[in-house]
Amino acid sequence: MDFSKLNGLIPAVIQDADTSEVLMVGFMNAEALAETRRTGFATFFSRTRGVLWTKGETSGNRLQVVEALVDCDEDTLLLKVKPLGSGRVCHTGARSCFFRALPLL
Amino acid sequence: MDFSKLNGLIPAVIQDADTSEVLMVGFMNAEALAETRRTGFATFFSRTRGVLWTKGETSGNRLQVVEALVDCDEDTLLLKVKPLGSGRVCHTGARSCFFRALPLL
Repeated sequence: MDFSKLNGLIPAVIQDADTSEVLMVGFMNAEALAETRRTGFATFFSRTRGVLWTKGETSGNRLQVVEALVDCDEDTLLLKVKPLGSGRVCHTGARSCFFRALPLL
Repeated sequence: MDFSKLNGLIPAVIQDADTSEVLMVGFMNAEALAETRRTGFATFFSRTRGVLWTKGETSGNRLQVVEALVDCDEDTLLLKVKPLGSGRVCHTGARSCFFRALPLL
């Protein structure tokens, strides 16, 4: 993977493996990606807190990775996941973080 | 939208509006987003070339935006699109840029 384009980070798109709904986008550094591959649960790098965090480590709503895909220029990941626990991936309580429409002009 | 977390850029996930396949991820600055909303076709900011580019402007394989969604903290976009032309979104000729598996450990 090419971590050079975003100061050591790559975006990781999280998609529900069953419904194909896009649930969230997180960022990973090399360590977060290694931890994700080692454990099979999505782990990100928090840009605001500067630490690794495994999604759901406190809520139990972890994201079990079913399949990982790399894009053509190796700077983005697509993770197909099975959401565990309540399945509410967003911290607002929504299933997906993408729940608001942006009007086109 | 919050463009402050990535030096003026936000990631935009491009998803096929019909099949739900994730096709690519691009980056937008405020100008690229405004152009996308104005024209209805996905326009990105090229991080390597430092210019705006409308996907498919030379190939004809433009991405017509059907729906735009903002994530909970307003730093990521999800665009549901109808791919025009050949429908081959990736520059390699693939339908999607995500065609290679990354093995989990």
